[in-house]
Amino acid sequence: MIVILKPGVPSSEVEIISEALAEQWNVKVEKSVGEHKTVLGLIGETALLHKDQIQKMNPWIEQVLRIEEPFKRASRGFRHGEPSSIKVPTPNGDVYFGEEHPLVIVAGPCSVENEEMIVETAKRVKAAGAKFLRGGAYKPRTSPYSFQGHGESALGMLDAARSATGLGIITEVMDTADLEAVAEVADVLQVGARNMQNFALLKKVGAQDKPVLLKRGIAATVKDWLMAAEYVLSEGNPNVILCERGIRTFDRQYTRNTLDLSVIPVLRTLTHLPIMIDPSHGTGKSEFVPPMAKAAVAAGTDSLMIEVHPNPAKALSDGPQSLTPNQFDALAAELLPQRVPALV
Amino acid sequence: MIVILKPGVPSSEVEIISEALAEQWNVKVEKSVGEHKTVLGLIGETALLHKDQIQKMNPWIEQVLRIEEPFKRASRGFRHGEPSSIKVPTPNGDVYFGEEHPLVIVAGPCSVENEEMIVETAKRVKAAGAKFLRGGAYKPRTSPYSFQGHGESALGMLDAARSATGLGIITEVMDTADLEAVAEVADVLQVGARNMQNFALLKKVGAQDKPVLLKRGIAATVKDWLMAAEYVLSEGNPNVILCERGIRTFDRQYTRNTLDLSVIPVLRTLTHLPIMIDPSHGTGKSEFVPPMAKAAVAAGTDSLMIEVHPNPAKALSDGPQSLTPNQFDALAAELLPQRVPALV
Amino acid sequence: MIVILKPGVPSSEVEIISEALAEQWNVKVEKSVGEHKTVLGLIGETALLHKDQIQKMNPWIEQVLRIEEPFKRASRGFRHGEPSSIKVPTPNGDVYFGEEHPLVIVAGPCSVENEEMIVETAKRVKAAGAKFLRGGAYKPRTSPYSFQGHGESALGMLDAARSATGLGIITEVMDTADLEAVAEVADVLQVGARNMQNFALLKKVGAQDKPVLLKRGIAATVKDWLMAAEYVLSEGNPNVILCERGIRTFDRQYTRNTLDLSVIPVLRTLTHLPIMIDPSHGTGKSEFVPPMAKAAVAAGTDSLMIEVHPNPAKALSDGPQSLTPNQFDALAAELLPQRVPALV
Amino acid sequence: MIVILKPGVPSSEVEIISEALAEQWNVKVEKSVGEHKTVLGLIGETALLHKDQIQKMNPWIEQVLRIEEPFKRASRGFRHGEPSSIKVPTPNGDVYFGEEHPLVIVAGPCSVENEEMIVETAKRVKAAGAKFLRGGAYKPRTSPYSFQGHGESALGMLDAARSATGLGIITEVMDTADLEAVAEVADVLQVGARNMQNFALLKKVGAQDKPVLLKRGIAATVKDWLMAAEYVLSEGNPNVILCERGIRTFDRQYTRNTLDLSVIPVLRTLTHLPIMIDPSHGTGKSEFVPPMAKAAVAAGTDSLMIEVHPNPAKALSDGPQSLTPNQFDALAAELLPQRVPALV
Repeated sequence: MIVILKPGVPSSEVEIISEALAEQWNVKVEKSVGEHKTVLGLIGETALLHKDQIQKMNPWIEQVLRIEEPFKRASRGFRHGEPSSIKVPTPNGDVYFGEEHPLVIVAGPCSVENEEMIVETAKRVKAAGAKFLRGGAYKPRTSPYSFQGHGESALGMLDAARSATGLGIITEVMDTADLEAVAEVADVLQVGARNMQNFALLKKVGAQDKPVLLKRGIAATVKDWLMAAEYVLSEGNPNVILCERGIRTFDRQYTRNTLDLSVIPVLRTLTHLPIMIDPSHGTGKSEFVPPMAKAAVAAGTDSLMIEVHPNPAKALSDGPQSLTPNQFDALAAELLPQRVPALV
Repeated sequence: MIVILKPGVPSSEVEIISEALAEQWNVKVEKSVGEHKTVLGLIGETALLHKDQIQKMNPWIEQVLRIEEPFKRASRGFRHGEPSSIKVPTPNGDVYFGEEHPLVIVAGPCSVENEEMIVETAKRVKAAGAKFLRGGAYKPRTSPYSFQGHGESALGMLDAARSATGLGIITEVMDTADLEAVAEVADVLQVGARNMQNFALLKKVGAQDKPVLLKRGIAATVKDWLMAAEYVLSEGNPNVILCERGIRTFDRQYTRNTLDLSVIPVLRTLTHLPIMIDPSHGTGKSEFVPPMAKAAVAAGTDSLMIEVHPNPAKALSDGPQSLTPNQFDALAAELLPQRVPALV
Repeated sequence: MIVILKPGVPSSEVEIISEALAEQWNVKVEKSVGEHKTVLGLIGETALLHKDQIQKMNPWIEQVLRIEEPFKRASRGFRHGEPSSIKVPTPNGDVYFGEEHPLVIVAGPCSVENEEMIVETAKRVKAAGAKFLRGGAYKPRTSPYSFQGHGESALGMLDAARSATGLGIITEVMDTADLEAVAEVADVLQVGARNMQNFALLKKVGAQDKPVLLKRGIAATVKDWLMAAEYVLSEGNPNVILCERGIRTFDRQYTRNTLDLSVIPVLRTLTHLPIMIDPSHGTGKSEFVPPMAKAAVAAGTDSLMIEVHPNPAKALSDGPQSLTPNQFDALAAELLPQRVPALV
Repeated sequence: MIVILKPGVPSSEVEIISEALAEQWNVKVEKSVGEHKTVLGLIGETALLHKDQIQKMNPWIEQVLRIEEPFKRASRGFRHGEPSSIKVPTPNGDVYFGEEHPLVIVAGPCSVENEEMIVETAKRVKAAGAKFLRGGAYKPRTSPYSFQGHGESALGMLDAARSATGLGIITEVMDTADLEAVAEVADVLQVGARNMQNFALLKKVGAQDKPVLLKRGIAATVKDWLMAAEYVLSEGNPNVILCERGIRTFDRQYTRNTLDLSVIPVLRTLTHLPIMIDPSHGTGKSEFVPPMAKAAVAAGTDSLMIEVHPNPAKALSDGPQSLTPNQFDALAAELLPQRVPALV
């Protein structure tokens, strides 16, 4: 944090301000006195400081500038530039998410509708090369009159699908009260876009052991998103995967959201955490999923989440954005060979 | 819902489509056969239907259009055009929120810092004309390293402030697990912007008796917001107050958010629920609060939420947007006489 | 501009960087050497510098920060904190726009449809208290198939309306080629939202004498907007009025744009230029115009632009957002008495 | 256009409304009378009609719905589903833009700084495989104090670069007054993002013969963009290339704009016009250009525009987003082999 003082500030005021800053915010204050300007550098836990609040302390303060990122454990520098590698044990063996590993595909229906459909879908997506099955037991829906998911009973169906296929399970937890039940079945816990700043939930998933898939909120900046990851990391869980699924912009006519693929290179420079792209929610239309999935892989994503439903026209939720199993076969066959990093 | 068929559709296909719609979606289908186009009207629980999914049912379907709003209990029509009047008992007497009642001002600090400050602030805002004290016990903060609120102990301090002043208490509940404890102290339960689509929380506050203050999410459309209210209403709690606190736009340099005052006349046409405006979060700067508060009253808001702190420069959160008690005195004195509806 | 060097930078590198900055950008460089950090302050025409470009000059540069606003002539400081007062001569006498003057209302139809309608409308809005007639001769329309305005012939009709009423005329210029013809009739030249960054046009209106009404672009930040004003001012024309007419956000269902009234207090702190609010384009619906006009006045706007059409249902453009003359009478009668600044 | 009447509308009113619609808007009205609802279909030049205006015609009108796209010549259907193929003659031979042709790369500096640099850059990008040289003679800049381009003299330098290399030239025209001079040198005329709705300019470039590169405005919806293309097409020029260069969203911290790659599949379904992606402006940072260029090709773009500067650190504009010639060599070598459509 840098505090710039106005030209002509008396040295007595510089002292007063420096001492007030040091005392009130518990930071070390370093003076740099130039010919025209005096600049104070604040060293310490500046993530806690608020620019505007410091600004108001003294009329000689001209401007307050933040010069460091407010996230720490999520930052690339925290691991000295090395990417994270997140290992997830599944019945079929350990799967790794990360920059140095092959592309991981997560596939499955929006919601778990019945045991037969989820097991059937799991078999199809496994055959095509997916390593994880996705499927919602608890569904966040805009309308209270829409299908809300089968809840706890759907968790049992996901368990059956895992037994039948050996795939890992990724499913969403929407409420702290459900965490224990969901974590019993899930290999990776999903925190959805609408809950990206449900801080009570973030703290709880941070205090348990399962890896966390953190979806970006529809209006979350990259910084907000990394700060949400920081909540999980700071509670002791180092295994967070960041999933972009489209942001909300002024144009919502032809796509449901605007899939922001530029986060791939942006996140690479900022964080060590693995990246996932969800072109199904990102576009909202099944015909746009293959081109955007290919684009995501070309831009360097570590993993993809793709909605697949045996009969999209009859899906209880998100049918329009789901691929059929045959469409998914073709896409996976094209994508999987494209990223087989040398290191693995 | 209106389904438009392509020109030249054979009558046998019209029958097939009509029957499939009726059976799959449990609606009544009404045909209108014109010279060029055939139009099917769907009557029934169409809030459950998804346009794109119907579109995919048959290649003869040209377009599917939704013609009714997806919210019901929140709609103005649900009360035959009459506004709601929400009565909140407080030690100082019943306070009413609604279009036909005087302006209600809610004031207080962002977070409850200690008993002395909250009681002192309560006395000051009461003297200025506020009917409710706001103050966070649980605080949603972007960073895990920022002050998170004093939690349960702060609830006791709010209780002390109510005893000392007779003001009603409005405080935020962030997690379903805390609901019971918060509801013991709060006269109105606040659901914050970040939790506007925390559906588990909405259902729980809908299933209890205290009125709910529902803040608009930073990227929530008016429709999303009313659907969130619909969650609370559909669980049986009819007492929801809608609070605008700024949306996120492309310009974030001089204000924290963009306060969308046009929601006042928009909501009046759509819903019977009372409206509150929060210019403190809406602008993020104390000097912008008075002009925007005046604008909100001129546009017809039913209530205002304003942050007041005895010493903004030392506030543990949101200091830059808080008025001093003296600034609040001046503002309340100007605003309160401006809206004394004839009916009261 | 502040350049922060990395910890441990050798003093020889500090010299190299300082000299390179001074030479390449023609600025004075002032060093402030602290214990941990060295900070270079750049003094001079820093509006020309690009942060990222400086960043790339040398690997010892940690961060580059802009500490001053990039606009000068538009800044409040340029007039030492005094607001501008823009005098516009009209047949009915001089009219003043500015913080210290009474509210000025500009009213009239979206487009000039024929001489009878524009003269009739002018008489009605004059009687209600408007000082200027608005009306488009050249109309920017999203579709090439929509009515594009009557062009030059409409300028004659505006002239007739001025003769008949003595009102000043405000009309839009869309192309540098039309400037001369438009300026012959207009008392104030409007630059529309879509042309806010048509820099060729800005330069030309800056190089002539008529005052300029500069509408904010739908995605222009306040800074972009003031920089567009700076184009006009830097060409020598000091008379720019800033008109907010709604920005584009994620929610476009119930209003055409989001009217950003917080620009009123924001602009007051940044610039000396007068402010106008256009609630007609800002909301796009006539029923929302009166509440938002009242809100704008309460927040302190200097002037209003309101669309009025003798028969909105038959308007060739923007009918849905136009008030009838009777509706305008009622609104003007309520608003005009509310702002009669003491100084006038 | 579909007009839905309220339940219980008397048949006499249906007649009155039908006749009024037919007469006022010059359309054919087709009635469809159902049990509950009566629906009127409007057939004819409905692109000219405004929903809200029709809504106001009669209180029995419940809702007005637009069911066709407002663009015609730009629509995919206008060419019966066939993509356009735009031929541009250059000294090196004809180059084709379109879905069925190989990837075309346009490269060069943001602005033409001097003849030596533009010729040198042209040679480098030609050697790497580019078919066109870009370079601004007239530069739209946010600040009047930034370098505005060398104007007409830069056109001569572009001409020299063409002579030296045989590359086609793409350069921006900012003002109708400059069109003739720019068109003498340019093989493709660029209309920039800030002028996408400068309708006077669109009409003039539509009335001449050179192909037009139409950049998407930063807040333009896909529909707005296609309507801008429609302006050019409707004046008689069928050769429009659509260039995405990033849109403005709420997050502007790490990228200059948000590059919206989903327009690639979206435009494919809507229009026959060729597509170009500009990852340089789209991200604003050179290190993000290669991954986003690869993503664009993977998603199916027909062409790319990439900024290349011999010495980005000394560029007079947009240095931070320019590749060096060596970086461009590597990128082009990777991209060009990836798209060699079978048809060519």
